[in-house]
Amino acid sequence: MTIRRVKAIVSYDGTHFAGYQSQPGMRTVQSEIDKALKKIHKKEPVHSVASGRTDAGVHANGQVIHFDTSLSLPLDRWQMALNVLLPTDIRIVGTDYVDLDFHARYSATGKTYSYKWSYSKVHSPFDRNFSVHLGHLRPDIDKMQEAAQYLIGQHDFTSFCSSKTATLNKVRTIRMLSLEKQGDYLIMTVEGDGFLYNMVRTIAGMLLAVGRGWNRPEDIQEILQACDRNKAGKTAPAHGLYLENVTYDK
Amino acid sequence: MTIRRVKAIVSYDGTHFAGYQSQPGMRTVQSEIDKALKKIHKKEPVHSVASGRTDAGVHANGQVIHFDTSLSLPLDRWQMALNVLLPTDIRIVGTDYVDLDFHARYSATGKTYSYKWSYSKVHSPFDRNFSVHLGHLRPDIDKMQEAAQYLIGQHDFTSFCSSKTATLNKVRTIRMLSLEKQGDYLIMTVEGDGFLYNMVRTIAGMLLAVGRGWNRPEDIQEILQACDRNKAGKTAPAHGLYLENVTYDK
Repeated sequence: MTIRRVKAIVSYDGTHFAGYQSQPGMRTVQSEIDKALKKIHKKEPVHSVASGRTDAGVHANGQVIHFDTSLSLPLDRWQMALNVLLPTDIRIVGTDYVDLDFHARYSATGKTYSYKWSYSKVHSPFDRNFSVHLGHLRPDIDKMQEAAQYLIGQHDFTSFCSSKTATLNKVRTIRMLSLEKQGDYLIMTVEGDGFLYNMVRTIAGMLLAVGRGWNRPEDIQEILQACDRNKAGKTAPAHGLYLENVTYDK
Repeated sequence: MTIRRVKAIVSYDGTHFAGYQSQPGMRTVQSEIDKALKKIHKKEPVHSVASGRTDAGVHANGQVIHFDTSLSLPLDRWQMALNVLLPTDIRIVGTDYVDLDFHARYSATGKTYSYKWSYSKVHSPFDRNFSVHLGHLRPDIDKMQEAAQYLIGQHDFTSFCSSKTATLNKVRTIRMLSLEKQGDYLIMTVEGDGFLYNMVRTIAGMLLAVGRGWNRPEDIQEILQACDRNKAGKTAPAHGLYLENVTYDK
C-alpha cells in the first residue's frame, strides 16, 4: 500500500466556527475537514495537519493543510470530493501531491495575514462579519505607517502577543507591514516568518490606536522594548483578520 | 401631539431571516424593526409598513419603509437610534420626514431588483449566501439577452409568478431588463412598475435555462402567452436576489 501526502489550500469564513482546531463538542474547521476525510476513506480516520490554528471568527483565504492517504485519486478529484462533503463555509481552493517530508506546519517559512477595517458610513449588513467598522473616527494612515516601521524586522514580540502564549522564544521577523486604503477599506497586510498567539490582532489594535492619536508612532519602540503585553493596547476583533497565505521553500 | 411620518431606506442580509414580514415565532426583518421602534417609543407599539415583502434568504440594499411617530427627533437621530437597537444584519441607510400621504407600498411607482450569479471556479465561502454559483456550465449571455427582450414591456406575467399568487391582475410592465458580466459575476437587473410573488426569481431561472440551452430565446413569447406557471422552468434560489431600490414620484 502506497501512502501519499496531499497538500491542500483552504479558504473559510470563520464566523460560525469555534476556531480552526478540533475541540470536543465544538464546530471547528479541522473537525469538519477530518469528518469529510473520514467519509472519503470509508470511515478510516484521517487527521489533517494545518500550518497553524486560527481563532473563532478569523477567516482564511489560504490556510494550508496536509494529510496522508492510501487512496490514489487524481488530484482534481480530491478537491471535488472534499468540496462536495464539506459545509459551504469551507472550500478547498487547491490541492497538490507533495513529498512525505512536506509538513504544513514545520515546513512553513512564512505567513501573510491581512486585517480589514471598513470606512463606510453605515457598516453594510453583507460585510458585518468580514471587516471591522471604524465608525466616525477616521484614523491617520500616515501615522499608522510611521508606527509600522518600528515593527518591521527582527524583534522580541512579547508585548504583542497574548500573555497566554506558551511559546518560549518570542523573537519573530516581520518582513513586510503595510497599510493601504482600498475603496471603503483600510487594509493592513503583514508578512513574517511566523506569528505568536494574537500577534497580528495586537499589532492591528496598536496601529489603530496610533492612527486615532491615542499613541504616538514612536511609542511602538518603547512598547516593544518593555516586553510586557500590558503596554500594547486592545487586541483588534477577530472578524477583521484573514490568513492570506503560507509560504514554503519548495 | 403632532404625528410625523418617517420614511427609511433599509439594507439587510436575508440569510438569517424567515423573510421580511412578521410571522409569529419567526425572526423576520419587520419584527426586528418594529421591536426597535417599540423600544424608541417607550414600549408603545409602532408598526412599520414596507414597500413589499421579500422571501427568506432574499437580500435588500434599498427596501423602503414608513412609520408614524409622535416623537420629534432630528432626522439623523432616527438612523442612529435604530441602528444601535437593530441587529447588525439590518441597517438603516437613510431616513427622511415625509408627508402623511406618503405610503411605502401604495405610493411606490417602481422597483429595481438584481440577481447575482457567480462564475468563480470554487464558490467563495464569503460569498456563499450572497450569490448563486453557476458551476461548470457557463451560460450564453447573448442568448439570455435575446430572451430578455421578450419580457420587456407590458405583459400578463401569470406564467412567471408563483401559482400561490393571490393578486388577480397579473399584468405588469418591465421597463428595463439587463444582463451584464461584472468581474466574476453575472448580474441581472430588472426594473418595473411592480412584481408578482416569485416573479423576479422565475425570470432569473427562465433566462438561465435559455443561457444553458435548455430553452430557446423565442420560447419566452410562447411561455408568456400560455399564462401557465408550469411552462416556465425552475424558480432561481432566493439568496441571489436583491431588492435594490423602490421609486416614488415625489
